[in-house]
Amino acid sequence: MSGNRAVAYKEPGVVEIIDTDYPTFELKDGPGVNPANVGRKVPHGAILRTVTTNICGSDQHMVRGRTTAPQNLVLGHEITGEVVEVGPDVEFIKVGDIVSVPFNISCGRCRNCKERKTGICLNVNPDRPGSAYGYVDMGGWVGGQAEYVLVPYADWNLLRFPDRDQALEKILDLTMLSDIFPTGFHGAVTAGVGVGSTVYVAGAGPVGLAAAVGAQLLGAAVVIVGDMNEDRLAQARSFGCETVNVTKGDPKDQIEQILGVPEVDCGVDAVGFEARGHGKDASHEAPATVLNSLMDITAAGGALGIPGLYVTGDPGGIDEAAKHGSLSLSLGTGWAKSLSFTTGQCPVMKYNRQLMMAILHDKVQIAKAVNAKAIPLEDAPRGYAEFDAGAATKFVLNPNGYVKA
Amino acid sequence: MSGNRAVAYKEPGVVEIIDTDYPTFELKDGPGVNPANVGRKVPHGAILRTVTTNICGSDQHMVRGRTTAPQNLVLGHEITGEVVEVGPDVEFIKVGDIVSVPFNISCGRCRNCKERKTGICLNVNPDRPGSAYGYVDMGGWVGGQAEYVLVPYADWNLLRFPDRDQALEKILDLTMLSDIFPTGFHGAVTAGVGVGSTVYVAGAGPVGLAAAVGAQLLGAAVVIVGDMNEDRLAQARSFGCETVNVTKGDPKDQIEQILGVPEVDCGVDAVGFEARGHGKDASHEAPATVLNSLMDITAAGGALGIPGLYVTGDPGGIDEAAKHGSLSLSLGTGWAKSLSFTTGQCPVMKYNRQLMMAILHDKVQIAKAVNAKAIPLEDAPRGYAEFDAGAATKFVLNPNGYVKA
Amino acid sequence: MSGNRAVAYKEPGVVEIIDTDYPTFELKDGPGVNPANVGRKVPHGAILRTVTTNICGSDQHMVRGRTTAPQNLVLGHEITGEVVEVGPDVEFIKVGDIVSVPFNISCGRCRNCKERKTGICLNVNPDRPGSAYGYVDMGGWVGGQAEYVLVPYADWNLLRFPDRDQALEKILDLTMLSDIFPTGFHGAVTAGVGVGSTVYVAGAGPVGLAAAVGAQLLGAAVVIVGDMNEDRLAQARSFGCETVNVTKGDPKDQIEQILGVPEVDCGVDAVGFEARGHGKDASHEAPATVLNSLMDITAAGGALGIPGLYVTGDPGGIDEAAKHGSLSLSLGTGWAKSLSFTTGQCPVMKYNRQLMMAILHDKVQIAKAVNAKAIPLEDAPRGYAEFDAGAATKFVLNPNGYVKA
Amino acid sequence: MSGNRAVAYKEPGVVEIIDTDYPTFELKDGPGVNPANVGRKVPHGAILRTVTTNICGSDQHMVRGRTTAPQNLVLGHEITGEVVEVGPDVEFIKVGDIVSVPFNISCGRCRNCKERKTGICLNVNPDRPGSAYGYVDMGGWVGGQAEYVLVPYADWNLLRFPDRDQALEKILDLTMLSDIFPTGFHGAVTAGVGVGSTVYVAGAGPVGLAAAVGAQLLGAAVVIVGDMNEDRLAQARSFGCETVNVTKGDPKDQIEQILGVPEVDCGVDAVGFEARGHGKDASHEAPATVLNSLMDITAAGGALGIPGLYVTGDPGGIDEAAKHGSLSLSLGTGWAKSLSFTTGQCPVMKYNRQLMMAILHDKVQIAKAVNAKAIPLEDAPRGYAEFDAGAATKFVLNPNGYVKA
Repeated sequence: MSGNRAVAYKEPGVVEIIDTDYPTFELKDGPGVNPANVGRKVPHGAILRTVTTNICGSDQHMVRGRTTAPQNLVLGHEITGEVVEVGPDVEFIKVGDIVSVPFNISCGRCRNCKERKTGICLNVNPDRPGSAYGYVDMGGWVGGQAEYVLVPYADWNLLRFPDRDQALEKILDLTMLSDIFPTGFHGAVTAGVGVGSTVYVAGAGPVGLAAAVGAQLLGAAVVIVGDMNEDRLAQARSFGCETVNVTKGDPKDQIEQILGVPEVDCGVDAVGFEARGHGKDASHEAPATVLNSLMDITAAGGALGIPGLYVTGDPGGIDEAAKHGSLSLSLGTGWAKSLSFTTGQCPVMKYNRQLMMAILHDKVQIAKAVNAKAIPLEDAPRGYAEFDAGAATKFVLNPNGYVKA
Repeated sequence: MSGNRAVAYKEPGVVEIIDTDYPTFELKDGPGVNPANVGRKVPHGAILRTVTTNICGSDQHMVRGRTTAPQNLVLGHEITGEVVEVGPDVEFIKVGDIVSVPFNISCGRCRNCKERKTGICLNVNPDRPGSAYGYVDMGGWVGGQAEYVLVPYADWNLLRFPDRDQALEKILDLTMLSDIFPTGFHGAVTAGVGVGSTVYVAGAGPVGLAAAVGAQLLGAAVVIVGDMNEDRLAQARSFGCETVNVTKGDPKDQIEQILGVPEVDCGVDAVGFEARGHGKDASHEAPATVLNSLMDITAAGGALGIPGLYVTGDPGGIDEAAKHGSLSLSLGTGWAKSLSFTTGQCPVMKYNRQLMMAILHDKVQIAKAVNAKAIPLEDAPRGYAEFDAGAATKFVLNPNGYVKA
Repeated sequence: MSGNRAVAYKEPGVVEIIDTDYPTFELKDGPGVNPANVGRKVPHGAILRTVTTNICGSDQHMVRGRTTAPQNLVLGHEITGEVVEVGPDVEFIKVGDIVSVPFNISCGRCRNCKERKTGICLNVNPDRPGSAYGYVDMGGWVGGQAEYVLVPYADWNLLRFPDRDQALEKILDLTMLSDIFPTGFHGAVTAGVGVGSTVYVAGAGPVGLAAAVGAQLLGAAVVIVGDMNEDRLAQARSFGCETVNVTKGDPKDQIEQILGVPEVDCGVDAVGFEARGHGKDASHEAPATVLNSLMDITAAGGALGIPGLYVTGDPGGIDEAAKHGSLSLSLGTGWAKSLSFTTGQCPVMKYNRQLMMAILHDKVQIAKAVNAKAIPLEDAPRGYAEFDAGAATKFVLNPNGYVKA
Repeated sequence: MSGNRAVAYKEPGVVEIIDTDYPTFELKDGPGVNPANVGRKVPHGAILRTVTTNICGSDQHMVRGRTTAPQNLVLGHEITGEVVEVGPDVEFIKVGDIVSVPFNISCGRCRNCKERKTGICLNVNPDRPGSAYGYVDMGGWVGGQAEYVLVPYADWNLLRFPDRDQALEKILDLTMLSDIFPTGFHGAVTAGVGVGSTVYVAGAGPVGLAAAVGAQLLGAAVVIVGDMNEDRLAQARSFGCETVNVTKGDPKDQIEQILGVPEVDCGVDAVGFEARGHGKDASHEAPATVLNSLMDITAAGGALGIPGLYVTGDPGGIDEAAKHGSLSLSLGTGWAKSLSFTTGQCPVMKYNRQLMMAILHDKVQIAKAVNAKAIPLEDAPRGYAEFDAGAATKFVLNPNGYVKA
């Protein structure tokens, strides 16, 4: 009950394991905690002993110094845990349950939650709709790359796995339910993927691969994944995707070679604002590249799902416009083709139960698709570094030894 | 240009191969042709040399004498063909195209067609909305279990396969696009099947098996198929379904053994009005059995897809109510659970292109799932008899030798 | 804090005002309380001083003795109130708020609630999914036709009106948000009503009138209401509906006179299992009449919304089948037309906020449409009697004098 | 059969009435006709005597010289007519029918038409999906601001009014069905407007006013229209809208004064690429202003409907980016709020029948809302000039005297 080892952001490029407090049913002051949230009582919360907690690409934006994340911010919003304590208002979640935690924190009591829009809950972040654990400007809820973590509104937020042994056996798959699997799936859903669709996913990082898996699960006829990292493209091919190396020229031409036509029904942006150019421009950032390319590639009447993060301000942006979050978009191209666009955080609760069912009944192998690899909590710095260097691996921290070799 | 060998209904239990006329671009008088359709000009039509044409369970209702089908009615509404002639108003379909024919005939010019409701086209059947080839009371369009067949509104109705050789290679799969694959898929869609769903399909005939395949393609976690024919249940198990033999008692108990709970998210009725009882009542007809059972089995908030045929009158019904198409339904059970119900012909054009894509890209093996077997046109009487006797086989007639051994 | 005057069911045909206990944050034993719910703690609840509480047609089923409702059951599930006390787990609802209570009780923490299916919450009724205040076999939550009432899961269930004075000024409209306005609206929505639709609503009681208002709000071109009570039909005409008196023959003919065609796009059943026949059969019960008639009247491709209650058992049913909740339905008629059907309780929370907005901004006059009339709590017996006798009035009880003359 | 007086584009700022050819069932060469369309046979077409044909804001882009429209292009894509001749392939449309012509030309035979995406038909414009009458780069179909016009695929495209006299009586309303009423309605639908929504429509030209009417018809609680033209804002107020004059500062502040909150549920862009700035920047073009403002104004979880035209190239653009159709969009703002965006031509056939029903049954007064004014064909130059100068009027040309004073 004493301490709580955790992964903290120290400075650009540096994360460290620190000792921090064991959680209580109150949101205490600390790095990044919104003043209006300090002292907030959490009788509806549960304290989890972390089973697994994954390193996410969006953590990298902070670690690279592309945000205003404060020193000692405890990271981690992809959390699976065992319930060890529940607050007095928790009625259905029980100690001993193995549960998945949606990365978006939500209250289950506001208009948006009632409309299933849990990515933009109105009651958890004093600054704006929407929140997440361990993330800058998201209200200050402490991250879960730690031995223990507090989850508010536990009856609402937590997804209980039906059987403990089965859960631990499939834990490397189930751990993806907290974020990237629903996020990739949401990208595919909002891109309009259905049975027989042709799909292009920009980006072969874990979210892109999850979007590709999601598209397959939705019945897509062909899923094409584009990236500039050959290891990640090989990973995509390992589960039946076609691939496009964007350093080798315009994706459009490569798509035509694959499909016979230079366009797809559905486009997914799994890259976001740190995009780079295509072909000879691949070496430098070009934040609008992916979206402009997707408008070019997607057939008239299609849709773009945009789970890739776009920000309102980017201190490290390549130019003045980028610094203010402005992108130079060829919207006319999209308009002429009657395209539609869906942005924003995935509302995880809309999908996690059904994706859990698909995992538990062996309809999908998400861990294998994203090349999940469990490492000790103490190895988190190495995991961050390798992931940032482009490893075709999804790192899963294993702080309490639940994941067996 | 001379004759046209075709399968005709002769009397209850008897079909024969007859010589009939080669089609022209006019709907001539003949068995079952609605007087208001006699002489109708079809300049928008195409004449097909039949590639494949399947025997359907709904043909059996006629052959068993459960309808008022007239003698010499040419049967067959599941048609794939090669275009050999087009009328003067046909602009996009070309001679030589290999095409799938949706079993529901539609005009592409009425309100319902414009709303994608091609199963209830207003302009092809003078009696009521909706039509089909070779079917009693459906306007009189000549059936396709023949060497040649006329398809009206060819630009609208026909689905062209992109490549002739590829089409002929996958013909036993593609032949299912004219009816049972979309019909089963529609059953799954209207039952609300999605990623992670648990599904019960009543009936393991070809439509039931196609519904099961459709549910899998939509991402279902578990698909359970119920029937009383062990061969057909074995067929369902061959592609990963769970099964329930309804002669062995209430499906609910068997579902509980499979899932741990006695209910499913989604129910599909692939049986229709010739249903039999369960358990010890399995030997006699009980037309409301399937629907009442599905209301019992389907969880609150679920949906029932009902591709199985229900009729407005059934001369062979077991009692007065059944003869008038009335069913004794426990609607209160459904109401208490907020169930919804979708009935009617599948609007094939809503699904056939996307299912074709899934077949062409090897995402689904429908021919294998329904155990498709090609036989010569001359063997149609045997095919009808074996199918009626419960063979776990989908018979595909091969009138012009396109299907190679 | 002492007593609590309330309307109780005594015996068939008799309701009385009784003294009962002021609520506490616990569900105590009492008439109709499910044993598994006795002693249930409700720290998430709020105690309301009743502002208004309406007499509902579904209360009449109990009062007529058509159910197993126990003596002294406190009635009332249509409740608007002022919050006078909140439990320790209530975070956002405050004392003094004027709130609407959805008649379906839900927890906001189960799978169904998370999917917006609050009419079939899994955690409030030990017998089956779904619950309501003051209703037989619904778990035993005490009814709100009383001075005070307890509402569980207050943050989730309650809809707060933005301004107290405005709320009290429009209270006769806003009181309809707890049940009949959303219920009627749900009937229209599930019948597929949209801009330009033609609609037939069977039944001109308050739910039927609310369905008609809902259809108008959704942009229907023509709304036709059928009933056998001329006063209620006059009420329907008062806000622009067409009407059909079903004692004067088949609705189909009368619809043809109004529309020029004998069918509508959308059908709503606002009658339920206590239906009577049409034309010369109008004097006796015929529980399948409305549904069979709607299948006949609704055009191919249409939908039926069925907010009218159907039960699993009806001790007072006209024959053996009716006593067991079985209806003789001409499903073949519906199947031939590809109709769909939606049954069940309206999930009020899906609609009440948006309907509140329409009321607050004067886009709809629901009180006027249903002829709302406030009466003292003590006059409830008279209200029940007059409503049962067919008064074209929606009675609103006014237990604490909030409604001014 | 002799001539055909028509409105033609001559040079920037100039339109004239010219003599041109009476149409035949062939698309002949002429100004703006795509070479691949020259000589195209149109046996499926109908020739209409024009009843009404409206001047549209998108015609102004051409007339202002912002496109590459060729000299003598006959303008006009908002057409209502009387059928005077039908081609040999027309089966259901008859001479004498009064019909509305969707401005998007579509074939009714391609994949997109079968999916109701008639704004991006694949078979009518050799350059790209989608077409329109009398418009630059849209295939070359001759415009309808003329005495007579040819409509291809008449059975598919034309909406027949049920009664000639009724149609002519309501002609100033019905004439809006060819474009602006469905276009505005589509903007509202794709912005997610439903019962109880709060809506902001940017632009009070005819499409903006039609979007406002559409939002009301969909049940919106509050519709706010923004513009800088006081006459047009007065027009919006005339039918119950709130208004915002964007020259007086940020719309956000004015919205807060109206609603009490600085945001709306739904945003409609009825301005497009020729947008101007707000407040003190209102005097010069700023093409991204409207979209950036709508992202700012629309609440998290909302949607933007974008019927306003954005182009792939704009020779008259204010800077290099604008000339190439690039906009500097603050996409991060939208992403943080999980907004979605729908662009493109309205697929008129998806809405025109239902909107016709609303007009015929007096549920909507679109002519009054947009201040429709019929003028002789010869007065078209004056109509164009006054409209361009900001008249709060929708000009309806009356080439054959059908519209009586």
